Amino acid sequence: MTGDRVTINEVGPRDGLQNLATFVDTDDKLRIIRSLLDSGIRSIEATSFVSPRWVPQLRDADALMAKLPQAGDVEYSVLVPNMKGYERAVAAGARSVAVVVSCTETMNRKNIAMSLDEAIAVSCDVIGRAAADGLRTRAYLAVAFECPFEGPTPLDVVIRLAGRLSDAGASEIAVADTIGAADPTSVHRCFSALMPDHGSARLSAHFHDTRGLGCANAFAALQAGVRKLDASIGGLGGCPFAPGAAGNLATEDLVHMLEAGGYSTGVDLDRLAAAVAVAESCVGQPLGGHWLRWRRSQERAGDAASPVQ
Amino acid sequence: MTGDRVTINEVGPRDGLQNLATFVDTDDKLRIIRSLLDSGIRSIEATSFVSPRWVPQLRDADALMAKLPQAGDVEYSVLVPNMKGYERAVAAGARSVAVVVSCTETMNRKNIAMSLDEAIAVSCDVIGRAAADGLRTRAYLAVAFECPFEGPTPLDVVIRLAGRLSDAGASEIAVADTIGAADPTSVHRCFSALMPDHGSARLSAHFHDTRGLGCANAFAALQAGVRKLDASIGGLGGCPFAPGAAGNLATEDLVHMLEAGGYSTGVDLDRLAAAVAVAESCVGQPLGGHWLRWRRSQERAGDAASPVQ
Repeated sequence: MTGDRVTINEVGPRDGLQNLATFVDTDDKLRIIRSLLDSGIRSIEATSFVSPRWVPQLRDADALMAKLPQAGDVEYSVLVPNMKGYERAVAAGARSVAVVVSCTETMNRKNIAMSLDEAIAVSCDVIGRAAADGLRTRAYLAVAFECPFEGPTPLDVVIRLAGRLSDAGASEIAVADTIGAADPTSVHRCFSALMPDHGSARLSAHFHDTRGLGCANAFAALQAGVRKLDASIGGLGGCPFAPGAAGNLATEDLVHMLEAGGYSTGVDLDRLAAAVAVAESCVGQPLGGHWLRWRRSQERAGDAASPVQ
Repeated sequence: MTGDRVTINEVGPRDGLQNLATFVDTDDKLRIIRSLLDSGIRSIEATSFVSPRWVPQLRDADALMAKLPQAGDVEYSVLVPNMKGYERAVAAGARSVAVVVSCTETMNRKNIAMSLDEAIAVSCDVIGRAAADGLRTRAYLAVAFECPFEGPTPLDVVIRLAGRLSDAGASEIAVADTIGAADPTSVHRCFSALMPDHGSARLSAHFHDTRGLGCANAFAALQAGVRKLDASIGGLGGCPFAPGAAGNLATEDLVHMLEAGGYSTGVDLDRLAAAVAVAESCVGQPLGGHWLRWRRSQERAGDAASPVQ
């Protein structure tokens, strides 16, 4: 309800940057991350320990980790595809790792060249090891609403996989609409089904705005009790391996919606707008979701209306 | 709940076209309306009997009315600003009229040069007369969430005004986010407060997508029991008298969200996409909400991927 705290998990530095055609320098990545911290964001998916052959955009994961600004209340997570990635991440100082299991056979094969069973086994191994090592773990369930290859994902598959990852010891299940195909009615149904088993402290939601339903889906998740949501600064990114997956939900759109509704995010919208500008300068392309485009149009209209001295 | 019927009230021919800089020929207006009927739309706000000095784009209201395709299940409504407009509308054959009251003093003065009390009195007179004449009446509550001049609209004002219009005999109260400033939490709260007194059969919702929350707000209204929603083909239009009001919620975005969630709209999305193309050719500018942009990008990608013979 209104007044509730909602955690924004910023995924731009990983999910956003990995989808760019160009490599963003480590120092520029740090500039983006610092601007996000300045806005009040405290949960950031910072990078990925995937093979540089697959994701060259994040090949500086080790160097980046060494330079991340540290503060007691900031949580950085890093994506790891397997035990080798996990070990690199731990060696680089990671305290929180994310694993990914796609909900369909075909998506796992296309994305990571594994069967669904293999993908679950690999992720559960990493989760178990991380739990033993005292690290926090986040398990993504990718294409949890629709798969570009297999169509709508059955809810019972999502429930079953969430249960397996949870049983393996995952701290958090991140249910992801990887290709932006979810609708809010389905989102509400899905999270309502997961909530009794996992609770809002162990569930999060990841939406893309591909078909313009990013905020509607986020609101539906919120209505179902979700209190942690992923978003990407300026809408940066998508999944390079999933057709039609452009456009993460923009962090500023999500924060605007939440703050307007009386939820507490701890994030300052003006500073978030400044973070978008920093990200734009670092990636060399225009960014910004609906709210920022509206705000900038208002600023231009205001400028035009100002008397010229 | 899923399976429920939801009525789409198409406002493009009025709220959309009145906001264009150019005049669209009567025959082109009819082409748009026919394409909407072909898609399955059965409720259309067709035109406005406002002074041609104020809204020259709709100066052909009489001629248009005479040519509207008639069918038993199609309901056309027309906007009337006062008793003079009402009498013109009736003479032209209108069977359903819409009146507008803005929720704030300043918006009424800026929009129609009346005080709030005067605006209510004028609307209630028209509603009473229409009820006596056996016409259906739709009463818009404009700027029901935020006013560009007075800021957030208090919920108790909306409740009070809805009560007065209802007491006057309005068949339907259309709660409107005229400047696209509403957020889904406030929308849910507002309609939840109105529902006990008015019921879903007598409430409808009108959203703009100005800050990207059109679909989120529509879903919130739906969750509160609303089953009739306004939208504008291709996102055409806005309110020319309200700063920052560009961008009606696109009909195809709304229908996509509803149909994906299992609601029944009676509207065919493919034919609706065709209607957007017709509207584009008639108004001479690109249109289309998020869903259509995504769909067209998929079609282009599909074309590009096809083997060249």
